[in-house]
Amino acid sequence: MPRTVFQQVLLIGKYQAPQAQRKLGEIAARLSRAGVEVWVGELTAQHTELPYPVLRSSELAERTAQGGWVAVVLGGDGTMLGAARRLAPLNVPLVGINAGRLGFMTDIADSEWEPAIDGLMAGDFEREERAMLSGAVERAGQTIFSAIAVNDVVVNRNGASGLVELKVEVDGRFMYVQRADGLIVATPTGSTAYALSAYGPILYPSVDGVVLVPIAPHTLSNRPIVLPGGADIVIEVVTPRDVSVNFDMQSYAELIGGDRIRIAQAPYRCVFLHPPGWSYFSTLRRKLHWHEVPDD
Amino acid sequence: MPRTVFQQVLLIGKYQAPQAQRKLGEIAARLSRAGVEVWVGELTAQHTELPYPVLRSSELAERTAQGGWVAVVLGGDGTMLGAARRLAPLNVPLVGINAGRLGFMTDIADSEWEPAIDGLMAGDFEREERAMLSGAVERAGQTIFSAIAVNDVVVNRNGASGLVELKVEVDGRFMYVQRADGLIVATPTGSTAYALSAYGPILYPSVDGVVLVPIAPHTLSNRPIVLPGGADIVIEVVTPRDVSVNFDMQSYAELIGGDRIRIAQAPYRCVFLHPPGWSYFSTLRRKLHWHEVPDD
Amino acid sequence: MPRTVFQQVLLIGKYQAPQAQRKLGEIAARLSRAGVEVWVGELTAQHTELPYPVLRSSELAERTAQGGWVAVVLGGDGTMLGAARRLAPLNVPLVGINAGRLGFMTDIADSEWEPAIDGLMAGDFEREERAMLSGAVERAGQTIFSAIAVNDVVVNRNGASGLVELKVEVDGRFMYVQRADGLIVATPTGSTAYALSAYGPILYPSVDGVVLVPIAPHTLSNRPIVLPGGADIVIEVVTPRDVSVNFDMQSYAELIGGDRIRIAQAPYRCVFLHPPGWSYFSTLRRKLHWHEVPDD
Amino acid sequence: MPRTVFQQVLLIGKYQAPQAQRKLGEIAARLSRAGVEVWVGELTAQHTELPYPVLRSSELAERTAQGGWVAVVLGGDGTMLGAARRLAPLNVPLVGINAGRLGFMTDIADSEWEPAIDGLMAGDFEREERAMLSGAVERAGQTIFSAIAVNDVVVNRNGASGLVELKVEVDGRFMYVQRADGLIVATPTGSTAYALSAYGPILYPSVDGVVLVPIAPHTLSNRPIVLPGGADIVIEVVTPRDVSVNFDMQSYAELIGGDRIRIAQAPYRCVFLHPPGWSYFSTLRRKLHWHEVPDD
Repeated sequence: MPRTVFQQVLLIGKYQAPQAQRKLGEIAARLSRAGVEVWVGELTAQHTELPYPVLRSSELAERTAQGGWVAVVLGGDGTMLGAARRLAPLNVPLVGINAGRLGFMTDIADSEWEPAIDGLMAGDFEREERAMLSGAVERAGQTIFSAIAVNDVVVNRNGASGLVELKVEVDGRFMYVQRADGLIVATPTGSTAYALSAYGPILYPSVDGVVLVPIAPHTLSNRPIVLPGGADIVIEVVTPRDVSVNFDMQSYAELIGGDRIRIAQAPYRCVFLHPPGWSYFSTLRRKLHWHEVPDD
Repeated sequence: MPRTVFQQVLLIGKYQAPQAQRKLGEIAARLSRAGVEVWVGELTAQHTELPYPVLRSSELAERTAQGGWVAVVLGGDGTMLGAARRLAPLNVPLVGINAGRLGFMTDIADSEWEPAIDGLMAGDFEREERAMLSGAVERAGQTIFSAIAVNDVVVNRNGASGLVELKVEVDGRFMYVQRADGLIVATPTGSTAYALSAYGPILYPSVDGVVLVPIAPHTLSNRPIVLPGGADIVIEVVTPRDVSVNFDMQSYAELIGGDRIRIAQAPYRCVFLHPPGWSYFSTLRRKLHWHEVPDD
Repeated sequence: MPRTVFQQVLLIGKYQAPQAQRKLGEIAARLSRAGVEVWVGELTAQHTELPYPVLRSSELAERTAQGGWVAVVLGGDGTMLGAARRLAPLNVPLVGINAGRLGFMTDIADSEWEPAIDGLMAGDFEREERAMLSGAVERAGQTIFSAIAVNDVVVNRNGASGLVELKVEVDGRFMYVQRADGLIVATPTGSTAYALSAYGPILYPSVDGVVLVPIAPHTLSNRPIVLPGGADIVIEVVTPRDVSVNFDMQSYAELIGGDRIRIAQAPYRCVFLHPPGWSYFSTLRRKLHWHEVPDD
Repeated sequence: MPRTVFQQVLLIGKYQAPQAQRKLGEIAARLSRAGVEVWVGELTAQHTELPYPVLRSSELAERTAQGGWVAVVLGGDGTMLGAARRLAPLNVPLVGINAGRLGFMTDIADSEWEPAIDGLMAGDFEREERAMLSGAVERAGQTIFSAIAVNDVVVNRNGASGLVELKVEVDGRFMYVQRADGLIVATPTGSTAYALSAYGPILYPSVDGVVLVPIAPHTLSNRPIVLPGGADIVIEVVTPRDVSVNFDMQSYAELIGGDRIRIAQAPYRCVFLHPPGWSYFSTLRRKLHWHEVPDD
């Protein structure tokens, strides 16, 4: 009879740092002692030597189909992002332990991983769902590329070119022609990533919306605009060439004039598990140096 | 037997301009010919001489209780805002005819009012609901002021004082201490009003959210933040004096240190009726001088 | 024969904090031992008990006329601002020791005041001049108010009113009608104060320019504009009432429609003395949490 | 004896549009009748058939060395920019006639070119000097590229890469490490071009300053900063690859980690001639849709 609410843990780590392997080993050992099966991600296994079975990417969908899995990710927001993109469609929740500075997504500090892991195994956590985006590029009526994004879909000019010209439609209605360095379509999760640098607003994670943030817009009144989560967004490339689309800055396609990028909420969400009492605002205050006390 | 989907029309007008009275008369006559009962708002009646019964504010709730009413507003966004604040709790939808430049809410142009009125009477319109805010000021445990807002609730410093210090909680969780000229809590409708001037994002009308926009924030990373529509927001005044709260810049209270302004979505919505094919994006493009064509 | 480059020191302190008096005493003693005459500012003397002669405000101009004075200010940027406004016209340089967190102007840390004071007395410092503004309010052809500013001249609405409407001319040429919460005219020194909160740019202290920053401008394209230092700026109040003008948020006048505020660089500059190796960029990095190292 | 203040005119045109050739012919004829020698630019001559001598680029410096030249440019700001970059070092002033919408630099409207040309020949114009930038890329101690800019020098990431990391020094002092899409160094002339899209301030043309505007900065408090015109700016590339530098978006070099871009005011200025009564503010109001009248 399992002593934990999860039966299997998938361990994923940012493996470049030498101390990461030792920490991964400690986490695995603690999980194992709690009575849970520990598996190591394929890429993580290639760079570390941990005495646990390897979960090959090709087997991921089949193995996790019966449920009972959780992924424990050691690293930064980038590592978490990559893991979330792969695991969200499989309905595997994620826990993020930060290897360095706390991140927006990896919110368990290095010094607090032990009680957090114990709590997780005991079912003592807060479950949070985050909406994702799915996007497809259509050229001459054919879908030539598709991907999903936890943070954002970004259409932008390449370095050597001038601005891009993008015609945007929402739910079949013409919105505007955007002339800019590019256009970011971000989830609430992505609103604190690239979109924030491009002067976008913060969207609380549970807001049912996506935000369009132009990068260096030629028209000064082209403010960020928040659309309902269910919006169907079509971005048509007007510029003939030197344009590309990025998903989470991890998956990438070159575009030409006439291409249409179709973006909507993905049919699945990624699930993050947080220690009890977790507060999104606390993360914002810490990451953005916000005032905490009146008399500061 | 009434030939129209509405039985009674309440006519409200910005009456200062001399030509407004003539236009109000023309609108009333056309409505009357369509077989609908025309009533004139109390304040409008005081400044015009129209041969229709006056609907006193004191009778408004009782008279409109049986349904079948629509309000036709001639004026600008300010006139519409005042009318919406009074009529939304009574479930009376509004139609806005612009007396001058097109507004965000008064979206029927002067030159198009005749077919728009005819269509309205024939049931040919698009119905749109807009969320509103309700707010209450608590002092020493007592509610000392309350009001509703179509656009925004604004807490700000008075002219002679320096910045205000405001402690903000959302759903019982501490968010931040905001040191600024003030803080705007805006609906999607209000996102294109004062909040836009204070560098807030645009929220599409149907987004289920409210946006907090600081005015001249002392902390540079205090970006606008969009919260879910259902959020309970409490703003506690830390500054001892010279602070006030405004609802739609029309209803107003002076505040002192320790006062708590409690803000949430109102239990009713205001309903706008638009001509068929109406597009919010078209309004944005026109009001904000957005690009419409690729080769501009 | 004096052993120092200065013969007299005027000591000014933020006296509210109990520990400030002790620190003022220590500074005075060290200065005195260095062979310089120590005087205490009138207001500072009222709140502390220091065994040094008091320099009355009424005698300030006469006493300092022969030169050889320096002011040592213990406090924050606000204290420094007030001192600079009074001493700049008298050509007395200022040194700022910070009583708490380092400021933009009070750049000598609490822990470093001793070597800084020794260096100052030995002539080991960097001299920096900062431009100031002088402003006058004209009503019906008469000057009814005038003042100088180290940071900024701010024309803004009072709390209860809506926006102000201001007509701005530069060197006799019409610039724009600004509809906003207000308009900030800032020196480079003031560019990191209120103007920065209102989304203005930073001006390096030696830039020969002033910056106009609108507060929550109604027209979205009303960006901050940097004018040459020698520009003559006239702001005419269009709004009938509920408008005021502030100088450094310390000196204040109520305005009415038709009033003209005339602003130009002041004929004198304030002089700050810094420890050798002082860097303005270092202050910016520390105050604004800028990145210092590539691999952060 | 010449009847005009100029003896030779160099005619430069945006030649793509079919009607441009006719207009160029009319301008040339009017100039010729005024008694001035008309020359056609080499590139312009290749695309048009005008009965005037061609001024080859290779002869430009020699021919214009004796003075008395003015360039008349028919086109948009892009055409003017290219001409200014070539003619400023030769001390040839420029006049801009707009072929379409008025530009920031081409400020003579299509409908007003005749009196403007007559005035120009009669010496009836306002002369305005604009500062320019010169930049050089150093790699391993060698200068591998250098160019000048009327508007801006832009260092930015290429499309596929993430952010760039740039270490900036001013007058030998470390300023910051900028992590962003890129960094714009703009003249006052360039402040209304790309820098404005990236949320930079406007610099009045005669301000002696350059402005650094980060594009989508990772650190939210990395505001635009205005430096004195005489500043020596060094931007060191920290990112290993996928970075480039642009001069006026017309001249371009690929960069690698360790490259240092050295930027300073150019030793010459470009000279624009305007019709009498010309106002920069008028251009701003028209181009940026600023309010002109109080009661709008």
